[in-house]
Amino acid sequence: MNKGELTRQRIVATAAPLFNQRGFAGCSMQDVMEATGLEKGGIYRHFASKEELAAEVFEYCLAQAVKLRSDGVENIAGATDKLRYLISKFVDEPSPLPGGCPLLNTAVDADDGNPVLRKQVRQAFQDWRKRLTGILEQGIAAGEIDHEVSARQMANTIIGTLEGALMLSRIEKSREPLRDAQRSLETLLNTLRAQP
Amino acid sequence: MNKGELTRQRIVATAAPLFNQRGFAGCSMQDVMEATGLEKGGIYRHFASKEELAAEVFEYCLAQAVKLRSDGVENIAGATDKLRYLISKFVDEPSPLPGGCPLLNTAVDADDGNPVLRKQVRQAFQDWRKRLTGILEQGIAAGEIDHEVSARQMANTIIGTLEGALMLSRIEKSREPLRDAQRSLETLLNTLRAQP
Ligand SMILES: [Mg+2]
Ligand SMILES: [Mg+2]
Repeated sequence: MNKGELTRQRIVATAAPLFNQRGFAGCSMQDVMEATGLEKGGIYRHFASKEELAAEVFEYCLAQAVKLRSDGVENIAGATDKLRYLISKFVDEPSPLPGGCPLLNTAVDADDGNPVLRKQVRQAFQDWRKRLTGILEQGIAAGEIDHEVSARQMANTIIGTLEGALMLSRIEKSREPLRDAQRSLETLLNTLRAQP
Repeated sequence: MNKGELTRQRIVATAAPLFNQRGFAGCSMQDVMEATGLEKGGIYRHFASKEELAAEVFEYCLAQAVKLRSDGVENIAGATDKLRYLISKFVDEPSPLPGGCPLLNTAVDADDGNPVLRKQVRQAFQDWRKRLTGILEQGIAAGEIDHEVSARQMANTIIGTLEGALMLSRIEKSREPLRDAQRSLETLLNTLRAQP
């Protein structure tokens, strides 16, 4: 990586917790200048606009979140145990950086706003759902999960329940909502089992 | 209501969808001036600061959300049917005004920010949970719900699952995540029944 690329990376990594905590409208290029110690020209040489920086910050946060929350799942055998593992990763490591889940934050921030971010976060949720439905469909094919189970419904429920619980846990500064979500999802997972 | 009170009410009602869609940082007093057609002095005569206006906007949004989502529950007999009713109200009428759920929006917006809003939204979730645990505990007392059920866990699960699904439904512009949450919550409600 040359010096320019390193600076670009440093700007993204420094801006990420700012955007994630304050939101798109709540974080200015001035804030990024102050946090990086760079002059205006030093930032704009790499990013033509706040929109361009925010888009790259989102991809950076997303990649970290996906890695943190799914690392090691490939070593787990069985669909239900894979889902259990992914749920426990989310509950134990709800956020890759200060400010909580970048997907949740960006979704709430951009659902009536920035169309570029909206598209990115929509894609991120689609990819997450696809990873979960893939696991569920493997479990159905293997006879572990009942073939009448809706993979889409279960995937949507896991994502929504975890993100909603994280929102509650963060505002209440308590891990209880996340733990309660994990227990309720465990009850649901136990209803998926194929009947012998 | 005198003229001053009417103007104050009008400022709050006009500012509510702006704050709810753009967030605290994304909505300026300038935006409120433009939307109301009032001069700066006309706004500041009623609200000393954006913080003060935002606090009143939140209470206004919250009152609407609670009414929209719980109206008529007093006419439903039985704890499980009361919960079903409240879930269907949320799924059918997810938001009282443009921008989605003001509790979710304010929670994500304020969890690292504005301490007044943070306190208000924390209280709002506590009150919501209290309404749900009250219903669950009545169901336990009446022998309808198993006495080993954790009312807190189920209440947290209902709130988090609905709010997370709403976030997904809004970003994907699809009612499917909310419908999927309703189906999964129905499965959970069916596990609460007291064993005869
Ligand atoms: Mg929004
Ligand atoms: Mg936040």
